[in-house]
Amino acid sequence: MGETDRLLEVVRGRKAKTVGLQFPVGLRTRAVELAREIEEKAGATCLVAADPSFGACDVAEMPVELIVHLGHAPMPHLRYDRVFFYDLPSPPLDNLAFVDAAEPMLPKRVGLLTTVQFRGWLPAIREHLERKGHEVHIGEPDRRVAYAGQLLGCDYHTAAVVAQDVDGYLYIGTGDFHPLGVAFLVDKPVVIADPERGSARTLGDLKDKILRQRHAAIARAKDATAFGILVSRKLGQARMGLAKDLKALAEKHEKRATIFLMDVVSPEFLEGYVVEAWVNTACPRIAIEDVLQYRRPMLTPQEFETVLGEREWKDYLFDEIRA
Amino acid sequence: MGETDRLLEVVRGRKAKTVGLQFPVGLRTRAVELAREIEEKAGATCLVAADPSFGACDVAEMPVELIVHLGHAPMPHLRYDRVFFYDLPSPPLDNLAFVDAAEPMLPKRVGLLTTVQFRGWLPAIREHLERKGHEVHIGEPDRRVAYAGQLLGCDYHTAAVVAQDVDGYLYIGTGDFHPLGVAFLVDKPVVIADPERGSARTLGDLKDKILRQRHAAIARAKDATAFGILVSRKLGQARMGLAKDLKALAEKHEKRATIFLMDVVSPEFLEGYVVEAWVNTACPRIAIEDVLQYRRPMLTPQEFETVLGEREWKDYLFDEIRA
Repeated sequence: MGETDRLLEVVRGRKAKTVGLQFPVGLRTRAVELAREIEEKAGATCLVAADPSFGACDVAEMPVELIVHLGHAPMPHLRYDRVFFYDLPSPPLDNLAFVDAAEPMLPKRVGLLTTVQFRGWLPAIREHLERKGHEVHIGEPDRRVAYAGQLLGCDYHTAAVVAQDVDGYLYIGTGDFHPLGVAFLVDKPVVIADPERGSARTLGDLKDKILRQRHAAIARAKDATAFGILVSRKLGQARMGLAKDLKALAEKHEKRATIFLMDVVSPEFLEGYVVEAWVNTACPRIAIEDVLQYRRPMLTPQEFETVLGEREWKDYLFDEIRA
Repeated sequence: MGETDRLLEVVRGRKAKTVGLQFPVGLRTRAVELAREIEEKAGATCLVAADPSFGACDVAEMPVELIVHLGHAPMPHLRYDRVFFYDLPSPPLDNLAFVDAAEPMLPKRVGLLTTVQFRGWLPAIREHLERKGHEVHIGEPDRRVAYAGQLLGCDYHTAAVVAQDVDGYLYIGTGDFHPLGVAFLVDKPVVIADPERGSARTLGDLKDKILRQRHAAIARAKDATAFGILVSRKLGQARMGLAKDLKALAEKHEKRATIFLMDVVSPEFLEGYVVEAWVNTACPRIAIEDVLQYRRPMLTPQEFETVLGEREWKDYLFDEIRA
C-alpha cells in the first residue's frame, strides 16, 4: 500500500469533507498533486496552507475538518486539534559511504543523532557501527520529540540524555545547526555524516565563530535601555511566560522592555520600532542563524540575562524550548 | 486634551489589564513610546502586534482584553471583537499650494477623494475649490468605508457614487494606487494633489502601462492548466466563497485549481508549488502593485474569468472587495 493510500484512508475514515494541507518548503512541489488526489479519490475539498511551515511547533489553524501536516513528527506535549501528522518514511538508505567517511573520526562510545526525515536509518547505521566495534547509544524520546535520536532546532534532549555514556556524537543530516546545538549543550565532539553530499565533516571552527557573534551581540546590547522581546504566535514556540519574566527582569535593572507578538519573524517586520536590541523567545534558530539579517542585536533569553548582569558569560547556555 | 489622553481614558474606562497595539508601518516609530505610556499611566500590560498591518481589513487576533488599532478607520460592515480604532486626527493643513497646483487641471464639477489620514482636510479643500468656482461633490460613505470621500485600495464606492455628478476627480494623497483604481472604475480624469511633494500631477500614462501589464498576465495564463487561488486569512480580505466559485468555474472549463490559504501574501511563500498562474482573492493591490515580484502571472478574479473565456477583455473590471 502506497503512502498516499494511507492518507486517503485517514481522510475517508474521518469522513472529512474539507481537508487542510500543510507542507514544509521541501515538499511544496507535491502539494498540488496531493490536493488533487485527495479531492478526486476521497471527495474532500482541500485547502493548502501557504504560510511557511517550519516544524510541528507551527501547525496552521484552518477552517477545515481535518488538517494534514506533512514532513514533521508531532511534538508529544502539544495539544493538536484535528491534526493528522503524515510523516513520510525516510528515503531508501542506498549506501553507507557517508557513514564510513565519518567512522574514523568517531570515538568508541558514540551517540547517534538525526532529524525526523532520516529517523528510519538509525537501526541500520547503529548495526553498521557496532560491526566496526563502536558502542552506539541512541537517546530515548520524551514529551517534546517523537523518535529516538531525533533532534529539533529547539530541543537536544536525545543528545543530553546519553551524554554520560558517550565520548562524542555522530549526526546524520545535511545542515550545521542541529550539531552546533549539540556542541553547545554537551562539550563533546560532533561529527556530521551528510547523506546529501555523501561525505563527513566536523563542525570545524563553527562553534567558535558563532560564539564570537554571540559575544558581539551581547556587547552591542550592553548599553541599550530599550529592548523589544519577541513572542511567537506559533503553538509550539509561544513563550509568553518567559517573555513576561524577562520584561520584569529588565525593569528590575531599570531597562525598558516591550513585548512584540508576531507570527513569522522577519527583519522587515521589525523595522521602524524604537528599540536598541531584540530578545527572541520564538524559535531559537532565529537569533543564531539569522542574526546578521537584523540591524539591531538579536539576543537569546539567556544572552539577555547576561546583558542584564544576571548570568556570567562563562555560563553561556544555548537556548532550547523545553517547557 | 491630547490624543493620548483620549486613549488612556478608553483603556481605563474598559478596565483593560492587557492591551494589544497594532500599528501601520508609518506609525511604528511611536509604538514603544505609546506602549510605555499606557503601561505607566493606565497600569495595563501591552503587547505590540509586529505582524505587518495593512488596514482595517487586517486586525490582529491577540490574547488581550482590548485591541487598539491605530491609523485606520473601521470598516463598518466588519464585526470586530474587543477592538478600539484609534484613528489619529489628520495633520494640520498648513497651506493649500498643492491644491492650487491641481486646480487649473480640474473640471468645473469635481469629486473630492482621499484616504483616511487626510479626511479632516476635505471641508477646507471643498470650500477653497468652491471659492474658485468649482462644484464639489464628496461621496457619502457606506458599509465598507467610514468617512465621506474616503477610498480604500479595495473600495471606490465614494468615487462611484458621485460619478454622475462630476466630470473628473481630485485625489488628495501621496500614492498612485487609489487614483488608479478610480481611473479604472470611472472613465473620468483624476488629478492627484500630493501634500508630501507639495505639488499636483495627473496619472499620465500609468493606466495604459498597467493595462498592458494586465494584458500580458492574462496572455501568459491563457494556456495554463493548473491555477492556484489565493485566499487571505485576514478578516476583511477573506473571500473564500469567491475562491470556491472560481475553482468550480475553472473545473467547468477543464482546468485545475487549488485553493491556498495564507496570511501575508509574499513571493517567497509561493515558491515551489506546481501551478502555472495565481489568482489573487486577497487584497486587490497585490495583483496590481506586486505583479512583477512574482515569477508566475498573478491574476485578479475578473482576469481569471477572462482567461477562462467567461469575460471579454473589453469588459475589463478593476477588482474591489464589495461583498
